[in-house]
Amino acid sequence: MCEHNPGSMFQNRKAAILGSGVAMGGRLVTAEEIDRLCGLRVGWTARNVGVLTRRFVTEGESASSMGAEAVRRALEAAGLGLADIDGVICASGIMQQPIPSTSALILNELGSDTAGLTSFDINSTCLSFLVAWDMASCLIHMGRFDRLVIVSSEVASPGLNWREPESAGLIADGAAAVVVGRPSRATEGAAVHASLLKTYAERAHLVEIRGGGSSLPATEHDGTNTSDFQFSMGGREVFRETMAHLPDFFEELFVNARFSWGDVDLMIPHQASPSSMRIVRRRLGIPRDKFFMTVERSGNAVAASIPLAMHEAIESGRMRRGMKVLLSGTSAGLSIGALLMTY
Amino acid sequence: MCEHNPGSMFQNRKAAILGSGVAMGGRLVTAEEIDRLCGLRVGWTARNVGVLTRRFVTEGESASSMGAEAVRRALEAAGLGLADIDGVICASGIMQQPIPSTSALILNELGSDTAGLTSFDINSTCLSFLVAWDMASCLIHMGRFDRLVIVSSEVASPGLNWREPESAGLIADGAAAVVVGRPSRATEGAAVHASLLKTYAERAHLVEIRGGGSSLPATEHDGTNTSDFQFSMGGREVFRETMAHLPDFFEELFVNARFSWGDVDLMIPHQASPSSMRIVRRRLGIPRDKFFMTVERSGNAVAASIPLAMHEAIESGRMRRGMKVLLSGTSAGLSIGALLMTY
Repeated sequence: MCEHNPGSMFQNRKAAILGSGVAMGGRLVTAEEIDRLCGLRVGWTARNVGVLTRRFVTEGESASSMGAEAVRRALEAAGLGLADIDGVICASGIMQQPIPSTSALILNELGSDTAGLTSFDINSTCLSFLVAWDMASCLIHMGRFDRLVIVSSEVASPGLNWREPESAGLIADGAAAVVVGRPSRATEGAAVHASLLKTYAERAHLVEIRGGGSSLPATEHDGTNTSDFQFSMGGREVFRETMAHLPDFFEELFVNARFSWGDVDLMIPHQASPSSMRIVRRRLGIPRDKFFMTVERSGNAVAASIPLAMHEAIESGRMRRGMKVLLSGTSAGLSIGALLMTY
Repeated sequence: MCEHNPGSMFQNRKAAILGSGVAMGGRLVTAEEIDRLCGLRVGWTARNVGVLTRRFVTEGESASSMGAEAVRRALEAAGLGLADIDGVICASGIMQQPIPSTSALILNELGSDTAGLTSFDINSTCLSFLVAWDMASCLIHMGRFDRLVIVSSEVASPGLNWREPESAGLIADGAAAVVVGRPSRATEGAAVHASLLKTYAERAHLVEIRGGGSSLPATEHDGTNTSDFQFSMGGREVFRETMAHLPDFFEELFVNARFSWGDVDLMIPHQASPSSMRIVRRRLGIPRDKFFMTVERSGNAVAASIPLAMHEAIESGRMRRGMKVLLSGTSAGLSIGALLMTY
């Protein structure tokens, strides 16, 4: 087996997060409600999954409506308007509809002031935001774009399988957006120092929604094969595979970046699950106060989970200008990704 | 209404197409077969749609199997192997399954030698390839990656609506891949000179597959609502809207690139439809021998249509090293995109 080195050769891209905003599903769902939906004894989800609350969308909410709201709030936080950006990249793991791209649907929600903006989607399931920010930081550094909005908006709840409570009890609906661009005086020093993204696709079918695309079209759903169109996760195997790669992965990232773990002020991981996150934190020897964890209160909002957590870290003052921040996570694929930045 | 200028500020990215390869669906489908599938008189599709032949997948073929084959052939054409690339970007308009990304499924098909490669999907429907090459040329120029494969693989036939023969008679299944990287001695002078991508999302619902994502889940297909899960295209309105933007769009591209129409040796458009392509060619005043058209024989293979046509242009000697080539097209969204390059 050959081991590739996609490298992170290009260091210190001058690109800053200028503002962030979020929009959550309208309905708070407790672990007890998940217990009922799954037909389990009250207390099962809280004890075995560990996610106590999360939000689901309600009637009338969609990935594009939440996404548009998050974009508006991120622009407001950055003190900018639609006229100040070059485009919108949607970085979600779950599409709103097969055609067109969710980015176009979000621009449609934002209205006619978006006419002429660039838009496209980037998808690496739960790592979509991280990959989009990795790529966008390069595009901004070299001047392909001046300013972009990256938005992750996930409506995951309709695809949950209540007979698989280990996954159904984790997932949340929500959206987060960031405005990114060349650092200004206020964000001087902001940069992306290094990034790494590796896929181990022998495990591509461990986490999946098998039906709904071209290989098992939605039109073949007939009521007897519903679970083929729902989320399925071989959680333990994914975790075992991930842990096997993690130490070498981070060593490569840090060597490339000429960073050490001690340089990291704050790690914002993908909010995968409470138990897996705790094990990763201990295995990597990261102090609790440097490891930002919201999953028990907020669940796993797929690709929106990293920017949702980052927004909360910014708002609460945990993530401050000048800090060295490590974003990282895993996704179906199986992919592992990380990005080292100065906020 | 504000008009944005996403610009193409960064000119002359040093990035070359090092090799290309294709894989087509296994079954040749004539216009007469489309007539039968749509319940129309023999001759209707040939006369009104103008696509005489196209290929559809057969049993056992998938977006990932065709995609993997196209990747293998592109690498072979470039004289390279999997160990020589940093990653695979899948640039398809139609996903194979909702989770994981099609790029991961293609790596899975390619086998364990892909372990550790970067992978993600870029989606802007029919413009996905053009957007991926635009972005990849920037990432290669600046050194984020040395070499990538971009692959577009479309299995569109299962989503066709035989009651809408204007669209069903156009579409094809197929895959095309290109290896891209820093120019070598053999490809000296190869560059991407400029690119432009603009979305007019007021028309986001004119071309769509409404069901199968989070807003109308596949699990709600019940046999009475099948057309909600099939392709639907407001062809005339899309075309009218596109034509209104096209002259200004190309003027902006050429001004940015400091090119004129006379500098273009060959234009490879998205193979949208015979009639729309002919009107565009005449309106823009492009000589027939500079406008590469395969749609009558091959149909519209969604995002694969540009790289499929480009591969044919290369193989047939129409597209040669040193030529100035213009790729362009439109996509659901509604988006317009173009890229000027030296091959």
